[in-house]
Amino acid sequence: MSDKKEFRVGLIGYGFMGRTHSNAYKRVGDFFPDLKYRPVLKAVCARNEERVTAFAEQWGYESVETDWRKVVARDDIDAIDICTPNNMHAEIAIAAAEAGKMVLCEKPLARTVAEAQPMVDAIEKAGVANTVYYNYRRIPAVTLAKQLIDAGKLGKIFHYRANFLQDWTISPELPQGGEGLWRLDNDAAGSGVTGDLLAHCIDTAMWLNGGIKDVSAMTETFIKERVHSLTGEKQKVGIDDACIFHCHFDNGSLGLFESTRYARGHKALYTFEINGEHASIKWNLHDLTRLEYFDHRDESIERGWRSIHVTDGDQPYMDKWWVPGLSIGYEHSFVHQVADFLQCLEEGKPCSPTFKEAQETQKVCEAVLESAKSKSWKDTGVSW
Amino acid sequence: MSDKKEFRVGLIGYGFMGRTHSNAYKRVGDFFPDLKYRPVLKAVCARNEERVTAFAEQWGYESVETDWRKVVARDDIDAIDICTPNNMHAEIAIAAAEAGKMVLCEKPLARTVAEAQPMVDAIEKAGVANTVYYNYRRIPAVTLAKQLIDAGKLGKIFHYRANFLQDWTISPELPQGGEGLWRLDNDAAGSGVTGDLLAHCIDTAMWLNGGIKDVSAMTETFIKERVHSLTGEKQKVGIDDACIFHCHFDNGSLGLFESTRYARGHKALYTFEINGEHASIKWNLHDLTRLEYFDHRDESIERGWRSIHVTDGDQPYMDKWWVPGLSIGYEHSFVHQVADFLQCLEEGKPCSPTFKEAQETQKVCEAVLESAKSKSWKDTGVSW
Amino acid sequence: MSDKKEFRVGLIGYGFMGRTHSNAYKRVGDFFPDLKYRPVLKAVCARNEERVTAFAEQWGYESVETDWRKVVARDDIDAIDICTPNNMHAEIAIAAAEAGKMVLCEKPLARTVAEAQPMVDAIEKAGVANTVYYNYRRIPAVTLAKQLIDAGKLGKIFHYRANFLQDWTISPELPQGGEGLWRLDNDAAGSGVTGDLLAHCIDTAMWLNGGIKDVSAMTETFIKERVHSLTGEKQKVGIDDACIFHCHFDNGSLGLFESTRYARGHKALYTFEINGEHASIKWNLHDLTRLEYFDHRDESIERGWRSIHVTDGDQPYMDKWWVPGLSIGYEHSFVHQVADFLQCLEEGKPCSPTFKEAQETQKVCEAVLESAKSKSWKDTGVSW
Amino acid sequence: MSDKKEFRVGLIGYGFMGRTHSNAYKRVGDFFPDLKYRPVLKAVCARNEERVTAFAEQWGYESVETDWRKVVARDDIDAIDICTPNNMHAEIAIAAAEAGKMVLCEKPLARTVAEAQPMVDAIEKAGVANTVYYNYRRIPAVTLAKQLIDAGKLGKIFHYRANFLQDWTISPELPQGGEGLWRLDNDAAGSGVTGDLLAHCIDTAMWLNGGIKDVSAMTETFIKERVHSLTGEKQKVGIDDACIFHCHFDNGSLGLFESTRYARGHKALYTFEINGEHASIKWNLHDLTRLEYFDHRDESIERGWRSIHVTDGDQPYMDKWWVPGLSIGYEHSFVHQVADFLQCLEEGKPCSPTFKEAQETQKVCEAVLESAKSKSWKDTGVSW
Repeated sequence: MSDKKEFRVGLIGYGFMGRTHSNAYKRVGDFFPDLKYRPVLKAVCARNEERVTAFAEQWGYESVETDWRKVVARDDIDAIDICTPNNMHAEIAIAAAEAGKMVLCEKPLARTVAEAQPMVDAIEKAGVANTVYYNYRRIPAVTLAKQLIDAGKLGKIFHYRANFLQDWTISPELPQGGEGLWRLDNDAAGSGVTGDLLAHCIDTAMWLNGGIKDVSAMTETFIKERVHSLTGEKQKVGIDDACIFHCHFDNGSLGLFESTRYARGHKALYTFEINGEHASIKWNLHDLTRLEYFDHRDESIERGWRSIHVTDGDQPYMDKWWVPGLSIGYEHSFVHQVADFLQCLEEGKPCSPTFKEAQETQKVCEAVLESAKSKSWKDTGVSW
Repeated sequence: MSDKKEFRVGLIGYGFMGRTHSNAYKRVGDFFPDLKYRPVLKAVCARNEERVTAFAEQWGYESVETDWRKVVARDDIDAIDICTPNNMHAEIAIAAAEAGKMVLCEKPLARTVAEAQPMVDAIEKAGVANTVYYNYRRIPAVTLAKQLIDAGKLGKIFHYRANFLQDWTISPELPQGGEGLWRLDNDAAGSGVTGDLLAHCIDTAMWLNGGIKDVSAMTETFIKERVHSLTGEKQKVGIDDACIFHCHFDNGSLGLFESTRYARGHKALYTFEINGEHASIKWNLHDLTRLEYFDHRDESIERGWRSIHVTDGDQPYMDKWWVPGLSIGYEHSFVHQVADFLQCLEEGKPCSPTFKEAQETQKVCEAVLESAKSKSWKDTGVSW
Repeated sequence: MSDKKEFRVGLIGYGFMGRTHSNAYKRVGDFFPDLKYRPVLKAVCARNEERVTAFAEQWGYESVETDWRKVVARDDIDAIDICTPNNMHAEIAIAAAEAGKMVLCEKPLARTVAEAQPMVDAIEKAGVANTVYYNYRRIPAVTLAKQLIDAGKLGKIFHYRANFLQDWTISPELPQGGEGLWRLDNDAAGSGVTGDLLAHCIDTAMWLNGGIKDVSAMTETFIKERVHSLTGEKQKVGIDDACIFHCHFDNGSLGLFESTRYARGHKALYTFEINGEHASIKWNLHDLTRLEYFDHRDESIERGWRSIHVTDGDQPYMDKWWVPGLSIGYEHSFVHQVADFLQCLEEGKPCSPTFKEAQETQKVCEAVLESAKSKSWKDTGVSW
Repeated sequence: MSDKKEFRVGLIGYGFMGRTHSNAYKRVGDFFPDLKYRPVLKAVCARNEERVTAFAEQWGYESVETDWRKVVARDDIDAIDICTPNNMHAEIAIAAAEAGKMVLCEKPLARTVAEAQPMVDAIEKAGVANTVYYNYRRIPAVTLAKQLIDAGKLGKIFHYRANFLQDWTISPELPQGGEGLWRLDNDAAGSGVTGDLLAHCIDTAMWLNGGIKDVSAMTETFIKERVHSLTGEKQKVGIDDACIFHCHFDNGSLGLFESTRYARGHKALYTFEINGEHASIKWNLHDLTRLEYFDHRDESIERGWRSIHVTDGDQPYMDKWWVPGLSIGYEHSFVHQVADFLQCLEEGKPCSPTFKEAQETQKVCEAVLESAKSKSWKDTGVSW
């Protein structure tokens, strides 16, 4: 292993995403042995020293910090991985870039387009490698969808529809804010389902189908007040519980997006479907190993939606794992993103989605929220 | 059979819907033997004498007419069934009502709200029994959905989403207008997918979930010009090829609707899903015997979407047919509507959807088209 | 309609199958208008005069008989349709053939091979048209399977597996014998699931995959005693509640069959799957409009089981019904069988399965029961 | 991490299973942080020094051996993990036990019951912790099935059916024997699909449903001769390509099992279904996160197969992984088995399936092969 170069990671934040990223760094070498870079878990940082120490022991981080500025300043760290609540992304990312660190940031990039702008500027000025964890692109079935589209299998696209349905906030007893619940706190998150869930849908959509030009949206907050988990006080709920929008893509196709945390029966059901002149594609996160594909060029009497079980060695990423028929899961999308990042690093290429690309997704999110507020169509200003 | 009263039908139009209605009249007695009324196929009417004669022979109509005014005028006919293109509905229905005939009209009721108004007025003035063939309500799985909702199983409703996806007009070579293709002719149809497909979705939605208050829509015409099948000349396409809208229901839930004839891989995929506080429901027309039901009150570790195969004797209409596990199909929804109409007739009750109710659906359709045109939200004016 | 020839039917028995057959005769003309023969419901016969009269009124039979010999003797009847319990098939069929009547017999042909032999002899001696209602062959998706196989799409066949699962006899409180329950009475039925359900599976299997050479079986009777519905007395249960067998087909493929009435959750789930060198096929009765098809010749990364929604005009029988995407159901398989019978009659060809072919199915059933009893392999003696 | 005890592993064999086991040892600590034991990858052993060295570098093994006897003899190793072809299991396991090592053996335990006996004897005599990797038990949905059965949800069981379908050996060009292909070599493997695939089905079946009493089987070898990958010579194929058997369980239920490598369209489709008096259960490996569950006690009109997406924190093992709705995959079953093994070790309890239990599975496999050969029923001699 002596010929591997170290890729020394400083992780900031240790929540759910801290775990998925840590797992990715630890596993990538086992399954992508040809990479020249080998991640080293140099430090993890969070304010609660006891907890972050426990996390470091569990995952094997070499050291612990309680002030993220120290991590950014350390010479023995090459890359900063940002897993904090959204309101901390900008400050950390800018500082990291200015310190010459590579930056891998959990999505969404920021709470607003304005907040994202200096992040992009700092990254570009520093010229450091960067990426944003829109991990769903790298689920093999989703990557396969991209391959089929890029190969022209679908022909002209007419429709793109996606939704992301959850049901975990239906109870009015659920508090908002604080650890594990910051996604319900508008100050920390920047928005509700729009930044949390639709941002994923939008990233995938523009990756697969190009830029979104204009949007018409509506949002709803079903539960108007919730107790704050730290203060115990009832407060107005600031986030959007649900968001729906339709839009035009640059290629002339129509888009339809919906997200909610009030869809009983769906834990994390991200679905998308694309209808083209010759073929269509469907996918959903609950059955993530399958890509549904309909090809009108199949002989007429035999046509049907094909349920492609994406577990074969000639399908994206799957030569790295087991044997045909044996599934991988959610966490592997992060392993793939780290593998691709390290591969790009080796080749001196940007790893998509970069900060710049993620800011385009931010523009759509912002146009969506503004459209809902003003009850009117909004141009996104996206250039994809 | 001597104790049965005759229900003498005059059918106007003999296309696809003429067949579904004729079949319903012929079969209802075999499967609903307790009805007091027995349909008699008295006359069928269309302008092409040769073809309508062939149709009459095939289906067993006692006589043929080529002028619908004669059918309306005949003393030996109790009910007029209207299966013509949409632009003929109003004139025929009004004349029939004025002649004291019962009227059963294929959907949509009319091309516009304004066109529908005198139809409703005439029906109400004449006090004749009437119904509009929004047949999908009476697919057993859909009726079961209604039962579960009315029993309060879902609790407060958060979301309603429906779409109706087809793919039969993707080819630019397909002509518009003329027999079998009048649905592509805006003058005859009044609109494209909005009146043809979304009208079904809206009818079901308001039946299951109450009135739609306001809408924000977009439409698209992908193929801008088509040859007319009769003239052979290229003409501007006037219909909407695709239509998407979101809306608020009176009960506070959010609605999302989409329809298109450009969704490759879907022949006639009508789907809806309702998300409530306690339970959710899904259905689709391609697998019409199944109702998908998720009940959050199920014990936690055993919860899952239930695929209810709606073929049991205690499920709607199914005691009339075969034995558990054996499916019925699309056509049976029309048999059920005729059975219900005759049952209502016997009991002197209106048979939903009446003309008046169908006009409310028309109001939503019209608001949708206006919203798309003006790129702004529109109130529907519906009172459900 | 004057150019149609009458096909005058005398129906014996009016239970579940009496209804499916009657419906078929009544509907075939509406949907297969080119047939030269037109069924006329001349007489229905059963011992209970009151009930058979009610049935005749409901379905429109012209007359009623209470002695089947009178029906067989009537000059105004062309064809005898046998829907009685199995123990009556032979006597009626033989008498009918001897009287020169055509015979359409519900399956299974008889209770035993020996009982079937004089039936076949009589039919062949009389040279009358005949068929046995193995209706599942004529569900469009099943017929499509046959087309694909005959076109060589599957290549060499390795495996055939089928099962027929029900759950209606699990309660020990369910009585046996008498009207509606004769299928639980071994004297009337001849066997349990073997003759009732597996006979269907075997008929389809040999039609699709050729003769079954030898079998190794086991049967089980889970509930050993049941009250007789007429006498109220507890009696030993004589039928097989469940039956499993494996076998060799003449073409070298392996067969696996199972049937039971103790499979909780399955009302009438008949499934089959065929695995060939190049392609495989799956079907099930609960989703009867779909044929699942996997073709290994599809491009590697896009391969998947295709869910073919068999509702298009170029798929078997579907040009007769509605439009693409709109399903037909169980009952239509009987309409198709009658249509094919009348078409064959017109062309002077046998309508498969004939009595002779149905006797081959009987041979497999008998070998299965003998194998289970003797706990050894049995040759079937089938020549397909 | 100082309070953890080391669990020092010596892995013998580095093929597909060597990877799954290595991954399990490396990941278990990250996700099961409460375990007292921490696996250390001490040594990996194989004859090809270059390859095993590469494997050791990739996976982080501390050292390499080319003679398994040396691994067994090393003082710095606590447990021997056997991933060799089946013909090596016995010798290694016995030597390891005699050396006082714990033994974790890939399934099947041995090629025959006779070969397994001294392995069980040695293990028991040495009193060392042991387990056999029948990993499918520990897929969360399968473990949930076990919980539901043990809670009595299904009631009396009538039927158990399972199959394991693959399609990777259909080509006659595929050679047999040698690295990666020893499963086609009867000397190395002991049998074909029976020991490779049915052994899994049998292990799960007896775990869920108790002992299998007697069996009636058939086997087939479709391709009679194949080239050996090392010698290049054509040789008779000794393995079973397909195996089917039915059986009685001790609890009176009927079993039906099938396995083949000639089922086109199925890469690794392991399925099972259990039908009980009150409820039924289905599962398949291609959609491994879902358990299908039908409960007859649900209210009649709402009954249906529930598709349980087993990703919640109160479902087996899932509190260790991500959040509801996010899937894990195949490899995690091995992590769970290692976690359970280490937990049992901590508690001084045997970890099922032990060698002794795995030998019972071997007895069924052997009875199956003997039954097929002798074309007669065989008692298994299993005491579960």
